[in-house]
Amino acid sequence: MIAVLKLGTTEKQIESLRQWIESQGLKVHLSKGEFQTIIGLVGDTSKIDEELLGSLDIVESVKRISEPFKSANRKFHPDDTIVKVGDTSVGGNIFSVMAGPCSVESEEQVIEIAKAVKAAGATMLRGGAFKPRTSPYDFQGLKAEGIEYLIEAKKETGLPIVTEIMNAAHLPLFEEVDVIQVGARNMQNFELLKELGRIQKPILLKRGLCATVKEWLMSAEYIMAGGNENVILCERGIRSFDSQYTRNVLDLSVVPVLHELTHLPVIVDPSHATGSARLVKPMALAAAACGADGLMIEVHNDPKNALCDGAQSLTPEQFSDVMGSVRHIIGK
Amino acid sequence: MIAVLKLGTTEKQIESLRQWIESQGLKVHLSKGEFQTIIGLVGDTSKIDEELLGSLDIVESVKRISEPFKSANRKFHPDDTIVKVGDTSVGGNIFSVMAGPCSVESEEQVIEIAKAVKAAGATMLRGGAFKPRTSPYDFQGLKAEGIEYLIEAKKETGLPIVTEIMNAAHLPLFEEVDVIQVGARNMQNFELLKELGRIQKPILLKRGLCATVKEWLMSAEYIMAGGNENVILCERGIRSFDSQYTRNVLDLSVVPVLHELTHLPVIVDPSHATGSARLVKPMALAAAACGADGLMIEVHNDPKNALCDGAQSLTPEQFSDVMGSVRHIIGK
Amino acid sequence: MIAVLKLGTTEKQIESLRQWIESQGLKVHLSKGEFQTIIGLVGDTSKIDEELLGSLDIVESVKRISEPFKSANRKFHPDDTIVKVGDTSVGGNIFSVMAGPCSVESEEQVIEIAKAVKAAGATMLRGGAFKPRTSPYDFQGLKAEGIEYLIEAKKETGLPIVTEIMNAAHLPLFEEVDVIQVGARNMQNFELLKELGRIQKPILLKRGLCATVKEWLMSAEYIMAGGNENVILCERGIRSFDSQYTRNVLDLSVVPVLHELTHLPVIVDPSHATGSARLVKPMALAAAACGADGLMIEVHNDPKNALCDGAQSLTPEQFSDVMGSVRHIIGK
Amino acid sequence: MIAVLKLGTTEKQIESLRQWIESQGLKVHLSKGEFQTIIGLVGDTSKIDEELLGSLDIVESVKRISEPFKSANRKFHPDDTIVKVGDTSVGGNIFSVMAGPCSVESEEQVIEIAKAVKAAGATMLRGGAFKPRTSPYDFQGLKAEGIEYLIEAKKETGLPIVTEIMNAAHLPLFEEVDVIQVGARNMQNFELLKELGRIQKPILLKRGLCATVKEWLMSAEYIMAGGNENVILCERGIRSFDSQYTRNVLDLSVVPVLHELTHLPVIVDPSHATGSARLVKPMALAAAACGADGLMIEVHNDPKNALCDGAQSLTPEQFSDVMGSVRHIIGK
Repeated sequence: MIAVLKLGTTEKQIESLRQWIESQGLKVHLSKGEFQTIIGLVGDTSKIDEELLGSLDIVESVKRISEPFKSANRKFHPDDTIVKVGDTSVGGNIFSVMAGPCSVESEEQVIEIAKAVKAAGATMLRGGAFKPRTSPYDFQGLKAEGIEYLIEAKKETGLPIVTEIMNAAHLPLFEEVDVIQVGARNMQNFELLKELGRIQKPILLKRGLCATVKEWLMSAEYIMAGGNENVILCERGIRSFDSQYTRNVLDLSVVPVLHELTHLPVIVDPSHATGSARLVKPMALAAAACGADGLMIEVHNDPKNALCDGAQSLTPEQFSDVMGSVRHIIGK
Repeated sequence: MIAVLKLGTTEKQIESLRQWIESQGLKVHLSKGEFQTIIGLVGDTSKIDEELLGSLDIVESVKRISEPFKSANRKFHPDDTIVKVGDTSVGGNIFSVMAGPCSVESEEQVIEIAKAVKAAGATMLRGGAFKPRTSPYDFQGLKAEGIEYLIEAKKETGLPIVTEIMNAAHLPLFEEVDVIQVGARNMQNFELLKELGRIQKPILLKRGLCATVKEWLMSAEYIMAGGNENVILCERGIRSFDSQYTRNVLDLSVVPVLHELTHLPVIVDPSHATGSARLVKPMALAAAACGADGLMIEVHNDPKNALCDGAQSLTPEQFSDVMGSVRHIIGK
Repeated sequence: MIAVLKLGTTEKQIESLRQWIESQGLKVHLSKGEFQTIIGLVGDTSKIDEELLGSLDIVESVKRISEPFKSANRKFHPDDTIVKVGDTSVGGNIFSVMAGPCSVESEEQVIEIAKAVKAAGATMLRGGAFKPRTSPYDFQGLKAEGIEYLIEAKKETGLPIVTEIMNAAHLPLFEEVDVIQVGARNMQNFELLKELGRIQKPILLKRGLCATVKEWLMSAEYIMAGGNENVILCERGIRSFDSQYTRNVLDLSVVPVLHELTHLPVIVDPSHATGSARLVKPMALAAAACGADGLMIEVHNDPKNALCDGAQSLTPEQFSDVMGSVRHIIGK
Repeated sequence: MIAVLKLGTTEKQIESLRQWIESQGLKVHLSKGEFQTIIGLVGDTSKIDEELLGSLDIVESVKRISEPFKSANRKFHPDDTIVKVGDTSVGGNIFSVMAGPCSVESEEQVIEIAKAVKAAGATMLRGGAFKPRTSPYDFQGLKAEGIEYLIEAKKETGLPIVTEIMNAAHLPLFEEVDVIQVGARNMQNFELLKELGRIQKPILLKRGLCATVKEWLMSAEYIMAGGNENVILCERGIRSFDSQYTRNVLDLSVVPVLHELTHLPVIVDPSHATGSARLVKPMALAAAACGADGLMIEVHNDPKNALCDGAQSLTPEQFSDVMGSVRHIIGK
């Protein structure tokens, strides 16, 4: 971490800053230029509060050289993390496909879809029981009942299940859920992240709509700092100035970027990102081509009657077609 | 609400859609053009799920004519809402100023600042006890202890207090808090909003970093739909492509826009938006000039040693200077 | 096109609007609801000025049902446009690869790179002679001399050449250039577009940094309305809130979106979008996987000494490796 | 300027870099940390190509300490620039108001509006003769004829005139124009900027829709580097994720930011930014309150029949009301 000091900083002020930094267990390197004095902080700076340092009267700006995330950082964990989920896993050489309905609507529906997506090659069943909706008047999910239907579908098919949590108080309902999803709107719900850090279940952490890569990894860090290292990252599109033809912009370049920065697995959700069933196949293939560890895809047996997000759901037949092309891309 | 139907939609499909709409208690107006058939939904469409309608096979696009928010909508409540807070209030002809430290650090600090901002004309004391921080390693606030210090400062000065909540489970600690703040990162923490809808305390709802005006009002609607109509909106800057000189972009045009759309009061936080003490005064004056109902401003007795966000805090003297100029603008 | 009229609009005003619309050669469909009157404009609305209509006193909002672009619209030209370029072409079943240095530096350099990229499978040579730079103090390109070197490289290798124009007054220098590129910053330089509409040379139109898909197609329309239908679209990344790890966000979902909206070919430039050589391969593969008609890739024989954008250039060996993997993806 | 070197950089590489930097006329300060070596470049770094330096094999990142703009930099020109325009001027203690129609439509129209805005206190007449329109099918302005009408209005009222240029080839038509405007879409049309640097007429440079403050100042630098120091900056709204209620987001915090960074005057255009007549007054007042040097406001004698952008035009009466309130804000 480098701090550039303001013009006119006195020797005494510099000395006082040096002592404060050293009191944090770091070493100080001083470089005095004709116009500018620069202080380098050497050691583990991940626990230094960058804003606090930047707010000091004598500091013009602060630049981190090393990343502020530590548990998620590939530098300190060079090997890929492989998250165990039931008999399967996410990361490493596995290509994971989580498929299922946006909302769980009935036991029959979810079992029928589960069988169909398993036959087509899905490795997990996804389905929404608690639904975050922009409007309080929109359908909010079947809640506990929805989770029960998912568990039934798991019994029938053997597919591990992934579903979203919105409130730490609901955790007891998630006992038999295999992967707990944190949605985009809760990516910086730090209180929820802390609670999820105290359990050992795999957490699928979706990127917030305007979260930077660094903020996303810091949210993963909240979970990991608590002791739960089973974090799966999921890109699901970011907000941009143009939403006429796609709901969000799928930011696929984060896939190789994250593979450099972190050892955590990275999957991609082309359904929510684009909001359009027709765009799911090309974007799923693109995600596979640039190295994603898997996909999350909405599949519905009757998309036009889906209670939510039907416009972006594939039929089981369309999903099967996507899976065939994905296998060509990943060479399996 | 208007639904534009796709080319080739059959009479039978249109009839079936008409029946479904009428079953929701709405009337249907049909307009058949040479190329396009348009369906108008007449009645209270606020409870129609726009995405669900748009996802139907035969629907090309959906456009709301009326707004999806109802309790917050000025059309149905033409008069300004005035939120009572202790002996003062927010909205109407009152210009509210909430001032205080970003983080509560000690009882002495917060009492000293409270006295200073009261003397300069602040109408409420703000201070952070629970702090949402991007990094799990940054200072997270004094928590319950911080709230106690705020209550002490309230006793000393009579100023009502406003402080942020991050977890509905902490609500019992907020008994003596006058206004509960929901931060930008929790604007779509719908579970928290629902809980706050069940109490009657005033809620200050900050705009999310990339929340549209409609999403923001829908979040207010979550609180109001539960029965709590005491909502204060707070603009605090949105995320943009340029953060070199200001942390966020203060979107002041939402002030007059919100005054048209809603009866709820709207205040502005220039400290967080800009991230720089030097920019607080000009942006506070601009907010007052365009009709804001008040300001939230960070004031610290020793900004360079503040535990967080010091760079954006004013000294009590600077705050007093801002207040003088604000009075000129609002003509009081 | 639909215009929603304001509450309280009188019969006389509606009649006057109807006459104005009919005077533009369009038919009018009127739909009177309980609260809202809606006017449908039937016929060729592409020449109706949407803002003008929306600005009328009695109009609440306007919504286009059909797209405002006509020459570029796939509805009216269902077959893919195939742009002839020397002995090769862009669009249809061809996968085009334009490779070469960001800046032309010397005759030797450009000939050496041209030979290398041809050997690896490139179909065209790209190189910058006129360089748009943010700073007036940065290297601005070899200009006319640079174009001469490109022509020499074309003679040596037979590869058609593509290079950027910044000023219509320079057109005489582009006589032997095969494809003229319009850069992102000039995408809405309408005067330049009009001039390029008067010639018959293929134009490669890069997307502006914050251009919507519609604006981009309207800029293509400027060229096509003048009579030049040889337009190639090139996605090169859009500006977002996060530029820490990639310069821009490569918006790959526009590839399938554009294939639906327009018959024009669409290529992708992963080098400028990411700004990083390491990210070029995964994003090139993703572009091929989602259906792009080709790629534009920076290749330099000595990236670390490149006069501009070296950090994003591949070596000829790296480029050859990318080409091998691309061939796997596109199945050729 | 600071360059952080990569781990594993050899002494020989560092020495070679040092020699290259010194060959550019700069001094080098070296700071070797335990993990990181940092090179400080001391001297006039404004002509160093930041991307080139960052692209070197051994460089991890580059950070500018001083700004890359020089002529526009307040550090080197502490006094406000006052741009002379006819008998009035822009900058310093003058509050300039440029008012008039979006498009010049007829001689009668523009003279009538000129008289009205002069009576209300405008200091200049603005009107569009060449109009940049997104669609080639929309009205493109009266062109040369429009400029003649503006000149007539100037003769009648004495108001200096400001109008937009889109093509350097049109410069001869601008002989009697007092201030030449460069529109948002041409802010990085560097060829046009260079031509405008060769004349001595005041240039009003609008901010591009997604231009950073630094890019904007670098575009001013293009004009100033050519010898024309008469540059006026104009904020007119930036593109964001929300355009439902305002066309763009008026970024008023750039006003105090620019006053720190540059000596050039800064005016604000609330009409284009918001796209709505009702929002012009509050945003004009806000601009005046935060220190803008002036305003550009659309005024039309018959807004509902304006050929373009009528929805954002004020009537002369509304404009007169705005001027009264502005005078209260600026205390004159």
